[in-house]
Amino acid sequence: MKEVSIAVVGAGGVGSCFLQQLALIATTHPKLRFHLNYIAIIDKALYHDDFSDIDIDTALATLEASGAPLPNLDVVIDYLASIPRKVVFVDNTSSQAIAEAYPKILQRGISIVTPNKKAFSSSYELWQQIFATSLSTGALVYHESSVGAGMPIISTLNDMVATGDKIQKIEGVFSGTMSYLFNSFAPLTGSGGRWSEEVRKAKALGFTEPDPRDDLNGLDVARKLTILARLAGLPLSSATSFSVQNLIPEKLRRDLSTEEFLERLIAYDDEMDLLKQEAAAADKVVRFVGSIDFTTGIASVGLQWYDRLHSIANLQGSDNIISFYTERYGSKPLIIRGAGAGGAVTAMGVSSDLLKVVSQIV
Amino acid sequence: MKEVSIAVVGAGGVGSCFLQQLALIATTHPKLRFHLNYIAIIDKALYHDDFSDIDIDTALATLEASGAPLPNLDVVIDYLASIPRKVVFVDNTSSQAIAEAYPKILQRGISIVTPNKKAFSSSYELWQQIFATSLSTGALVYHESSVGAGMPIISTLNDMVATGDKIQKIEGVFSGTMSYLFNSFAPLTGSGGRWSEEVRKAKALGFTEPDPRDDLNGLDVARKLTILARLAGLPLSSATSFSVQNLIPEKLRRDLSTEEFLERLIAYDDEMDLLKQEAAAADKVVRFVGSIDFTTGIASVGLQWYDRLHSIANLQGSDNIISFYTERYGSKPLIIRGAGAGGAVTAMGVSSDLLKVVSQIV
Repeated sequence: MKEVSIAVVGAGGVGSCFLQQLALIATTHPKLRFHLNYIAIIDKALYHDDFSDIDIDTALATLEASGAPLPNLDVVIDYLASIPRKVVFVDNTSSQAIAEAYPKILQRGISIVTPNKKAFSSSYELWQQIFATSLSTGALVYHESSVGAGMPIISTLNDMVATGDKIQKIEGVFSGTMSYLFNSFAPLTGSGGRWSEEVRKAKALGFTEPDPRDDLNGLDVARKLTILARLAGLPLSSATSFSVQNLIPEKLRRDLSTEEFLERLIAYDDEMDLLKQEAAAADKVVRFVGSIDFTTGIASVGLQWYDRLHSIANLQGSDNIISFYTERYGSKPLIIRGAGAGGAVTAMGVSSDLLKVVSQIV
Repeated sequence: MKEVSIAVVGAGGVGSCFLQQLALIATTHPKLRFHLNYIAIIDKALYHDDFSDIDIDTALATLEASGAPLPNLDVVIDYLASIPRKVVFVDNTSSQAIAEAYPKILQRGISIVTPNKKAFSSSYELWQQIFATSLSTGALVYHESSVGAGMPIISTLNDMVATGDKIQKIEGVFSGTMSYLFNSFAPLTGSGGRWSEEVRKAKALGFTEPDPRDDLNGLDVARKLTILARLAGLPLSSATSFSVQNLIPEKLRRDLSTEEFLERLIAYDDEMDLLKQEAAAADKVVRFVGSIDFTTGIASVGLQWYDRLHSIANLQGSDNIISFYTERYGSKPLIIRGAGAGGAVTAMGVSSDLLKVVSQIV
């Protein structure tokens, strides 16, 4: 019987799915015993001083009503480090503060599993601290769902690098929001909708952040590219250190409510139509992509034209697609395509990572 | 420093690439030390009674000239089991006899890494013995490259199953040969070549087995489907226990040399053209696919029609494509596409598996 302690932070869309999956995994892996010793949401935490377990089924219900105020992160780390078995810290938040504590957590021998992009796409110093500490203490850090949700993107790239393949280019549609917007605005068949209407529709369908500008600024894509570039050995200093096309018109970037923004975006519809028509005149379609060229060391995020039969042109719905061009794969890339967002699939990446970490540390 | 012993059997297309990658990995993983203690090709073997290492660079050169005759497999297993550290047996052959010895090997605590399909697509009894022995001894068996070469097919499916996703359907083009043939014979644009000419061309380009009938009979695809079905919990009794369409015309299945076969295949070109024209009349294309429907428990291999914008229609060259329809992914599958054959990428699957096994056993 392998035993491991789990600390879970965050119980939102991903976190609550993760807890369901954890409960399921516990019943289907008879040789594994998970001790859930700590669980926290935004401002509340549940744990016992005697390291006894918290019951997943009741934790979520009781957390908000009777959880203690959130302890200081240092106190949490001390508590976890004192648990008399191996501990995995599962960070299902998108908190910058928690991300910055990863080196401290790893320093205490606690492994980390997370979909949180912040730790890996902020300063390069934080990145170096995280992986150097992991290497020196043997505590592991797995983050499959930080790019492409549960799709095998990070693991595939890590396998290529670890076995000595040379990554030449990574290119793809890394944002479900951008995918949906351009597949609807500039579809392969038909003329598509008007830009401002498609943005409004995407928001109504829940495909954007509460403020769509948080998608349109391209920063989410830039963060994902930063992670992949660094894993493949290109030390990008931050997610804003390379060219990122911002689809928010310059005059609409400040001092506007979301509704005002959507209203004023209509004035730019003709400009966006022109983009689509220019591409169509060349028998191509326009898509919002991220790419890293490892031969030149240049990463970029923005609009590109693609042939109508190109795999990037031919996406559907809000699917992501990521293409790996490598020495071993030659001229035809390895392509992975599917849902790059959603609670259940993102949590699946976290759960798989947890099983991989546990198989190595206990 | 983690130390592990490696035994390598087979040094053909995949095996020789694997040895190159092993040499590379040894230089890039300073905390890992691989001891190559045994290496064998078809009829020769090299190893030292004192468990000292064999130098990869010279092994391949000296093996054929001065290797000892191949010892009995039981002798090899006894030798490996007596090595005073953890051992991984890397089977880069497609040998049925070696595959049948996997339970014995695992029984001695030796882990296995292999692209050999035979062990996992022969009788269900062999499958059960392999995984039951692995479970009881803790020796691991990894076989990523048994389906889709180095692409993350097996690992992705295993992750889904381990974390409790429900697999609904797996569908795809699992044969590089069939992919090339149908992409050329029934392309999305243009009318394509004549069937017998495309088969001849594929053979000339090295995209088929020495006798193309070994691809056209569909058995290779059936073996891969068998593996995926079993991993997802459908206990198919063998690769011939379900419907497999054989593209060798019935009268050409025996007593013909390869050249006679290719010559006589011309007589069937009109029949094949009809297939293509019928699909085109419905604005579709014909493709050779394998699919497993887990709700009905039915696997099948054969010709299917696809809309021209379907990801299976829109393949290029000899690429494979595999789509996973699952409960968590919902209506839009996770799709993985790329080279499903070739020495370097197949060996990469083996090398990655080796690293994953080593990270768990030492």
